[in-house]
Amino acid sequence: MNAEREQAVTDEVVASFGHDDRLAEVMRSLTTHLHAFAREVRLTQDEWTRGIEFLTRTGHITDDRRQEFILLSDVLGLSMLTVGINAAPEPGATESTVFGPFFVDGAPGIELGGDIASGAKGTPCWVTGTVASTTGERIPGARIEVWEADDDGFYDVQYTDARTAGRGWLTSGDAGEYRFWSVRPSCYGIPDDGPVGELLAASGRHPMRPAHLHFMVTAPGYRTLITHVFVAGDEYLASDAVFGVKDSLVVDVADHPPGTAPDGRELTEPWASIEFDIVLAKE
Amino acid sequence: MNAEREQAVTDEVVASFGHDDRLAEVMRSLTTHLHAFAREVRLTQDEWTRGIEFLTRTGHITDDRRQEFILLSDVLGLSMLTVGINAAPEPGATESTVFGPFFVDGAPGIELGGDIASGAKGTPCWVTGTVASTTGERIPGARIEVWEADDDGFYDVQYTDARTAGRGWLTSGDAGEYRFWSVRPSCYGIPDDGPVGELLAASGRHPMRPAHLHFMVTAPGYRTLITHVFVAGDEYLASDAVFGVKDSLVVDVADHPPGTAPDGRELTEPWASIEFDIVLAKE
Repeated sequence: MNAEREQAVTDEVVASFGHDDRLAEVMRSLTTHLHAFAREVRLTQDEWTRGIEFLTRTGHITDDRRQEFILLSDVLGLSMLTVGINAAPEPGATESTVFGPFFVDGAPGIELGGDIASGAKGTPCWVTGTVASTTGERIPGARIEVWEADDDGFYDVQYTDARTAGRGWLTSGDAGEYRFWSVRPSCYGIPDDGPVGELLAASGRHPMRPAHLHFMVTAPGYRTLITHVFVAGDEYLASDAVFGVKDSLVVDVADHPPGTAPDGRELTEPWASIEFDIVLAKE
Repeated sequence: MNAEREQAVTDEVVASFGHDDRLAEVMRSLTTHLHAFAREVRLTQDEWTRGIEFLTRTGHITDDRRQEFILLSDVLGLSMLTVGINAAPEPGATESTVFGPFFVDGAPGIELGGDIASGAKGTPCWVTGTVASTTGERIPGARIEVWEADDDGFYDVQYTDARTAGRGWLTSGDAGEYRFWSVRPSCYGIPDDGPVGELLAASGRHPMRPAHLHFMVTAPGYRTLITHVFVAGDEYLASDAVFGVKDSLVVDVADHPPGTAPDGRELTEPWASIEFDIVLAKE
């Protein structure tokens, strides 16, 4: 009898979104699943209140520099699921992963072989590879945006001094090749001093992401690729706080003693190198 | 193949909430249903972004005087469903409905037969009834909190002048009887100048609530009753923006010409009266 009364509430709400458009379709589905959740766990009034308070605090900590709702979507796996829904798998193409909240429009462009570190702390890392299609044609002129955290685990935008470091873009060469200097990726914790951090702590989950370097690659006639390169051997590969790891994106990083790098640069400190070939799906 | 990959994301997230406690139970269910929603509607990246922006604006408009997340829960029927989940139906007892965001602790107490209007604009309304158990015993000493909007559709807390009007509490008499003056309830719109209002407008839904008077009734040994009395004939009874209407809570309001009220009060203007008997379920 109670089940019937509860279902009647859901039916009434679903019917209220009666328009025959996409918003109505989304809201009917959202309402149905939200209600199914509340019924399944027998949500108490106190839990409902705590949920309202959690969302309120998540809204209040969010500003121009911090997006706690994206973080929430990330740690609930919704961001990664949305990536999967929208990037239909294409045999042979490089897989996608989460975009994350740290991309910045207008990063500096560099020449092939230039340095995106711009003072970001970390071991110098030489990154090379090719951009090609799933049928093997090399793609010259692809725009490659890269961004990453420094050795202390922070992106430039997380500092308050307005620095630009550990980000930039370049264009693939005539044979689809690319190469640039950056710093060896480090694992880091997502911001955990807000409601999302409390949720992770209360759930016994750590806030760490395995070391990675972000890529966004665009070329006319190809689907935009948003992905990461992950570092093999990282202790957090199996427990990424935002569920972004795909096996095909994990690569070995080679570590080298001080000496001459492939581009002739003389290094007095140890350095690293990554090879990562990118395959784009046709549009 | 894509379905399998999408399910794998959900499975990974659900497994991350591995603790054997209530939080894990809630988060596993929430995640499962949230993901099922995203898969069902094939949520686009743009829709995901708009969802993040909607929640952000909902958080930013929320402050000490305005709770847009409760409003959101209300218009999605989650508040009413939660009431239903937590108030198991008890044959013969008065039904519950939503609490709403306008209750204020510390409202003034009045004598039996006193006036809670305190200057709230509207037609004087004489409200009478009894408080009894489901087995018919009258309950003296029950605490009856009542609150309502004025004739312009606003609760006192929606004004910026810190007034207290249209709210108060009294205690049932020796025979469980109660009586007080208030104003005739008016229909009103929930605040619709924020994200929730935009959602309603985009969905072709109006923001109106049918006329009602809020009750919260407590007595030792009985379950607390949170409910409304709705006014029969209101044009919004079938389309309450927050889905709070139950047929058993709709009562006739009698309208009277100027004259002497049952308590001897002389009225030079028209007045109204409501009879509403309250039945509490035992704890």
